Amino acid sequence: MSSATSSPVTVETINPKVLKCEYAVRGEIVTHAQRLQQELQEKPGSHPFDEILYCNIGNPQSLGQQPITFFREVLALCDHPSILDREETQGLFSLDAIARARQILNQIPSRATGAYSHSQGIKGLRDSIAAGIATRDGFPANADDIFLTDGASPVVHMMMQLLLRSEEDGILCPIPQYPLYSASIALHGGTLVPYYLDEATGWGLEVSEVKKQLEAARSKGIIVRALVVINPGNPTGQVLAEDNQREIVEFCKKEGLVLLADEVYQENIYIDNKKFNSFKKISRSMGYGEKDIALVSFQSVSKGYHGECGKRGGYMEVTGFSADVREQIYKVASVNLCSNISGQILASLVMNPPKVGDKSFKSFSAEKNGILSSLGRRAKTLEDAFNSLEGVTCNKAEGAMYLFPWLHLPQKAIKAAEAAKKAPDAFYAHRLLDATGVVVVPGSGFGQVPGTWHVRCTILPQEDKIPAIVSRLTAFHEAFMDEFRD
Amino acid sequence: MSSATSSPVTVETINPKVLKCEYAVRGEIVTHAQRLQQELQEKPGSHPFDEILYCNIGNPQSLGQQPITFFREVLALCDHPSILDREETQGLFSLDAIARARQILNQIPSRATGAYSHSQGIKGLRDSIAAGIATRDGFPANADDIFLTDGASPVVHMMMQLLLRSEEDGILCPIPQYPLYSASIALHGGTLVPYYLDEATGWGLEVSEVKKQLEAARSKGIIVRALVVINPGNPTGQVLAEDNQREIVEFCKKEGLVLLADEVYQENIYIDNKKFNSFKKISRSMGYGEKDIALVSFQSVSKGYHGECGKRGGYMEVTGFSADVREQIYKVASVNLCSNISGQILASLVMNPPKVGDKSFKSFSAEKNGILSSLGRRAKTLEDAFNSLEGVTCNKAEGAMYLFPWLHLPQKAIKAAEAAKKAPDAFYAHRLLDATGVVVVPGSGFGQVPGTWHVRCTILPQEDKIPAIVSRLTAFHEAFMDEFRD
Repeated sequence: MSSATSSPVTVETINPKVLKCEYAVRGEIVTHAQRLQQELQEKPGSHPFDEILYCNIGNPQSLGQQPITFFREVLALCDHPSILDREETQGLFSLDAIARARQILNQIPSRATGAYSHSQGIKGLRDSIAAGIATRDGFPANADDIFLTDGASPVVHMMMQLLLRSEEDGILCPIPQYPLYSASIALHGGTLVPYYLDEATGWGLEVSEVKKQLEAARSKGIIVRALVVINPGNPTGQVLAEDNQREIVEFCKKEGLVLLADEVYQENIYIDNKKFNSFKKISRSMGYGEKDIALVSFQSVSKGYHGECGKRGGYMEVTGFSADVREQIYKVASVNLCSNISGQILASLVMNPPKVGDKSFKSFSAEKNGILSSLGRRAKTLEDAFNSLEGVTCNKAEGAMYLFPWLHLPQKAIKAAEAAKKAPDAFYAHRLLDATGVVVVPGSGFGQVPGTWHVRCTILPQEDKIPAIVSRLTAFHEAFMDEFRD
Repeated sequence: MSSATSSPVTVETINPKVLKCEYAVRGEIVTHAQRLQQELQEKPGSHPFDEILYCNIGNPQSLGQQPITFFREVLALCDHPSILDREETQGLFSLDAIARARQILNQIPSRATGAYSHSQGIKGLRDSIAAGIATRDGFPANADDIFLTDGASPVVHMMMQLLLRSEEDGILCPIPQYPLYSASIALHGGTLVPYYLDEATGWGLEVSEVKKQLEAARSKGIIVRALVVINPGNPTGQVLAEDNQREIVEFCKKEGLVLLADEVYQENIYIDNKKFNSFKKISRSMGYGEKDIALVSFQSVSKGYHGECGKRGGYMEVTGFSADVREQIYKVASVNLCSNISGQILASLVMNPPKVGDKSFKSFSAEKNGILSSLGRRAKTLEDAFNSLEGVTCNKAEGAMYLFPWLHLPQKAIKAAEAAKKAPDAFYAHRLLDATGVVVVPGSGFGQVPGTWHVRCTILPQEDKIPAIVSRLTAFHEAFMDEFRD
């Protein structure tokens, strides 16, 4: 197959699993938005808006959220430890950040932040994270169970790589889901077994529905290996009740499923009558230990009140696997050597933030609470705005960073979308972008009950921009309905 | 398949590709070394050495190499930009580091080092890297061709994921090779097609040998998709001559192979009569452009004189692929959102270090040249030491960070290894570790001509430790030969 003219690689000859994979939150609409942004730069005034507002992705600092000072102080000092002993440093950095940096450097072999670490991450940092988990849950955690990673995405790939042998292996995923799951399952050649969240009950997770889908998959010969639960929900924003979590644990135990618990939004809760409970805490409180349930919990530094997406820090806590399977997980981690050390340090800080009595505690708490309460207000304002639109209903964002409103689109709009060769929700999202500069992701990227249409919209634009977004959205939607109302 | 007692996941039911994958540089001997280290900590004097010397992996800062000051200054300032305008900062940081940090922050949208970036990496940083490549090669480079990644390992996985459809797809790899390649090919279910480097000619890469192996693979029905070349070599340390590189480019063009050029050791050259030439430069100087050859070049911040392994920065420069294949590569990159921003910044610094006239240039050059000339001396001393051992021959480390001496082991040692159920090189490496605390990796982890035995030893221990290593190695080897000489 000599070829003297051009590349031997074509889309017809690449891995078909790559072709099959889709990732909506960075998909076509974002490419279109980037094009508009460039046009705005080159020719200001060329569009009916001044800026693109990226509500497509949970990326708080891209929209102006400031990093938590204490975290950044510690990271900077660990990057350049030789200033730790300089007098000027005491004027520039808080004293407890200096102390924390020293403590972290002492946990790192040879104090070398520029060395590859243990493939699970630096042992001392894993000890701190385990202590943070134990404080959170009231149950012990073990540093040997922690695998530090470059954000939470690699964790999902590692588990899919481990569990999926062929398309006859299935993973139960919520619909709507975060499309990392569908993308990773496609890349690793398995089958996504969908279970539907109930929009009518605030995106309720009904175990009876999961069971029904499990049985349907099994009857088709699919070996279902794991259940993915995202709590708080993405894109759906619900926070699971304790009773519901107990049912889920019981179900996984009974059915022999690994429970993959995506808990990256554990700090993002905006309502008083719900709180986050980790699945580890729930299963331990039910008396289930290592031997009873295989459970992987994911955490990320990208979310929470800190939103440090660019640092790519995260971890998984792996419990309930045999030693020889654990060894295989370690081997896969070791092929990439280790995750980045700044991300590892940040993960240890997120799980052990300043405490009462620490010098930085007051300013840290003010920053944290300011961000979280503002996010709560933004969620409520945007939820109300969506609910005030004709033919739109929107569940509460109890947690996470998203609203997922249901667009009851008129038939005429659906026909227009068809003529434009777009799904109706993609048609709406493109129209919205072209009219307002607001980027949302069509619901089809996350999955939805067939025949229903949604968009995912983050709650992340800064608070002073929210009124303008609401009025632009409202005006757009009125015009859209005027054009397409049946 | 209900299971009420334990984890549903066993080594028998995980993905067999995971089981098949091996990664020697973090394999069994390292686990054994970590155990010894712990024993030394708990019971000093329990072994005939005071410390474990990890010569198993190219991890300079773990062995005491200090980071380059300028790079760390810039990273710290980018982590905590709010100190940029403080007066104390001018006393703590060099003025050009402050200026560089400002310049980099201005290249980052919203100056947000905590935001996810474009999935290929921050455009402004890619522009800098492209400029650095153009300066290095004397041929233009394009920011759109750069994909920034968390170290170079993810690049290898991305390309294997793209190219390998089944075990009928093959990748030509040098033997000995860096085991990331064999591991990644196993994980992605393809076939490694070996070509042998010629130890007798200083690990020469003969195109006739590559052609022979390509034809043999094709005759077995393997579709060979790419040729991996590691230059400077790992574990073999050779630096390819320009003529040789031209033959390789011509061969790939003629045979329709993607050229995967692992160029992560491009700064690590220790002899005067060889220099590094990128395959991009070579192919462009032959008059071949985008349409003629598909070429992927890998670079990492982990190697070079800086050795910033823990920062997980790296990039690939992708040329000669069609737009639609490029789009698929982008999609796979986008599923993981982006690489860590500190690693991205560091990659831009490595490709654009301080220049003549910059405030830091003198101190930067002193640090850089100090490290490189010391590495050259260490390579020579260790090479001579290996060559002085009975039955050991060792090629020069012209570049990279390793020696790969050939151990002509006596039959009696081979029989003893067999009795201990170890490969002879693993047997030797274990004996060496137990006697001296020096960790080297058995050659079988890299591949070697059947019946020959090697170990890979880094040249990274600090210079003041080299004499002790040489005398311990020499004493060990003498005793080993006394025990096993035929």
